[in-house]
Amino acid sequence: MTAGMPMRIRAARAIAECRRIAAMSEVPEQTTRRYLTPPVRDVHALLQARMGSLGIKAHPDAAGNLRGLWRSQKSHGKRLVLGSHIDTVPNAGAFDGVLGVTVALEWLELAQQIELPLDIELIAFSEEEGMRFGTPFLGSRAVAGLFEPALLALTDRDGATLEEAIRAFGLDPGRIGEALLDGNAIGFVEVHIEQGPVLEAEGLSVAAVTSIAGQTRFAFKFIGHANHAGTTPMHLRRDALAAAAEWIGAVEALALRTDGLVATVGRLDLEPNAGNVIAGSVRVGFEVRSAQDTLRRNAAETLLQQAQAIARRRHLEWQHIPQMDQPAVPMDEALTAYLAEAIEAAGLPPKRMPSGAGHDAMVMAARVPAAMLFLRSPGGVSHHPAETVLEQDVEAALSVGRKFLERLAAEVG
Amino acid sequence: MTAGMPMRIRAARAIAECRRIAAMSEVPEQTTRRYLTPPVRDVHALLQARMGSLGIKAHPDAAGNLRGLWRSQKSHGKRLVLGSHIDTVPNAGAFDGVLGVTVALEWLELAQQIELPLDIELIAFSEEEGMRFGTPFLGSRAVAGLFEPALLALTDRDGATLEEAIRAFGLDPGRIGEALLDGNAIGFVEVHIEQGPVLEAEGLSVAAVTSIAGQTRFAFKFIGHANHAGTTPMHLRRDALAAAAEWIGAVEALALRTDGLVATVGRLDLEPNAGNVIAGSVRVGFEVRSAQDTLRRNAAETLLQQAQAIARRRHLEWQHIPQMDQPAVPMDEALTAYLAEAIEAAGLPPKRMPSGAGHDAMVMAARVPAAMLFLRSPGGVSHHPAETVLEQDVEAALSVGRKFLERLAAEVG
Repeated sequence: MTAGMPMRIRAARAIAECRRIAAMSEVPEQTTRRYLTPPVRDVHALLQARMGSLGIKAHPDAAGNLRGLWRSQKSHGKRLVLGSHIDTVPNAGAFDGVLGVTVALEWLELAQQIELPLDIELIAFSEEEGMRFGTPFLGSRAVAGLFEPALLALTDRDGATLEEAIRAFGLDPGRIGEALLDGNAIGFVEVHIEQGPVLEAEGLSVAAVTSIAGQTRFAFKFIGHANHAGTTPMHLRRDALAAAAEWIGAVEALALRTDGLVATVGRLDLEPNAGNVIAGSVRVGFEVRSAQDTLRRNAAETLLQQAQAIARRRHLEWQHIPQMDQPAVPMDEALTAYLAEAIEAAGLPPKRMPSGAGHDAMVMAARVPAAMLFLRSPGGVSHHPAETVLEQDVEAALSVGRKFLERLAAEVG
Repeated sequence: MTAGMPMRIRAARAIAECRRIAAMSEVPEQTTRRYLTPPVRDVHALLQARMGSLGIKAHPDAAGNLRGLWRSQKSHGKRLVLGSHIDTVPNAGAFDGVLGVTVALEWLELAQQIELPLDIELIAFSEEEGMRFGTPFLGSRAVAGLFEPALLALTDRDGATLEEAIRAFGLDPGRIGEALLDGNAIGFVEVHIEQGPVLEAEGLSVAAVTSIAGQTRFAFKFIGHANHAGTTPMHLRRDALAAAAEWIGAVEALALRTDGLVATVGRLDLEPNAGNVIAGSVRVGFEVRSAQDTLRRNAAETLLQQAQAIARRRHLEWQHIPQMDQPAVPMDEALTAYLAEAIEAAGLPPKRMPSGAGHDAMVMAARVPAAMLFLRSPGGVSHHPAETVLEQDVEAALSVGRKFLERLAAEVG
């Protein structure tokens, strides 16, 4: 066995591959690659060639996930699963999802070098962002056995159903059941950029993810009365925006005094939204996330009650529009501990943190022990062309990968 | 001299004429009548016939204002000017402006009955709302001698210049100077719906207007950073909407504790305005109005400073966009006192109030002593098809008119 290629060179290669894949886009001069669109074929071809050079034949499953299996001569049939997604948001960066695939390729090669006594399945998930059919995680749902047949009737903006899109890509929607993860899988590990500012603020390269935060989303409307801004005295107003502003202040105050929780009003829709007219109605979009479900549900409940109290006091109507209540998904304790130990073994602080965003690992966790490794996101930037990673952090993720695989080898062997 | 038609019948007629004029519209089934559009000809024809029945020949001036002069046999050449505007906002009600014209016709007939020793000029102003060329008061500006020739270059949404629109209506833009009010005018009185809830809240039919509120309008932008709502901890956010909400609260608090002032944030433009993204920037539209210029300017200055302080504390950028600083225009004290006395003489409480909205009387005041009589707006509704008036209030406005004209007759005679 050889020490092989220096980690720095591997890191540069993983980044270069992300950049090359970023050019495979529905839209020239930007990166937009929705589920089963033509550039996905180019990504598949690139990854098939790359895996071919590692001696692996990769094929898409019926949900469009590209999957390749390395059979270790030392394994007893058990397998480790690695991967992330290759679809993107519109006008995306190069690293969200894709870096988890190119880093997994390097981990796989490292596993070959140390003759890991486990097979490795690499999955490039076809759909995570939900951009084409308005529903996320279509790829990992198929792998985790959570793909409801009703999903095939979803339509994209051109009116094509998901079933038609799968056929048009040359796949057979009747065989999605076969995408189910093999029962011999012992764990799934996803490497992903943090998409937030925490690691950068703490000067850290990587972290083991403890859980995926749960999420409550709702919207509501304050309905007051749209009146002339010049002729309506203050005490006769029923100003829906003043109510919304009061509530936004309450949201921020509660979230600031509550550790382990983020709460956001990011969207307001005002009617009529004219400078000289008192807002007649405001639709307020809200979400709160936490790794602790009780904390999150209590916060949502408190804030809903405050909204209703504000509406009553201001003589406004109030309409609630529930949208989502998704529990937190803890990552597997043992796998996460191995990752944290591997971080320390690589000479880095063993940082653990929750993920505020959803990931394929959250869906996979329903089927198999799952873990995630986060890489620092410079500037906290993601879902934007300026999204990037530091080469030193990718190098750290590879060193952590080697230590993790060695730890796993010792454990299994 | 006969007591003539009962006021109740006159009131019903003035309302019926408004309803008939409301059907003269650019858009079927609604009332939309912008400056110099085809339905304006129909309104002119109706008013010309109506004035013809009172022995008056009415003609449009070069700015499109329809003008008719009744020469009193008892006058010494001095004239009282009455009127309001006949253009509308899109999908308007029937009474904003137009009621001031149909009530003026009744006042004129009452003046004829009492042989008022003043001539009366009736003006149906062609343009007050600013809907076609984005600039209001074009009609009264011409009459008040405030029509800058540069205005002729304004264009409408079809690219037609104001000059072309005047020619297309069969008028000569070179003769706008001749629209100037006659030097023998001793006063202008405009009857108008309140367009606000004050008279209704106080259970009153009419009020004498003391002044037109001054107005400061500005917009500004809070510029923070658009980040992922799930992955960005509260303490690392630069949330432009949280800043805007804080400021809106400050605006409302200041206005509520300041008598004689209204302040409004009616428009917000968020970027990106997505539920799961922290607002990167918010453009805030603001206006403050008061009959007291110092009060208004101090409030605007205080609130601007608070906005800047909020931006600094929250590490946001801040961009100020000044838009308007228009002083209050007091109505003529003597004419307003006559109106208030006439209200009392008609058996009603002599309510005085400022106008929060701009009116032709504000422009006319630059040229001639001006006064206004407000009528209650049921529900405070205006600029909406539901805009209405109570027949009893129109009747009150006619009784006030008779008392006012009698008072004026005594004064002049």
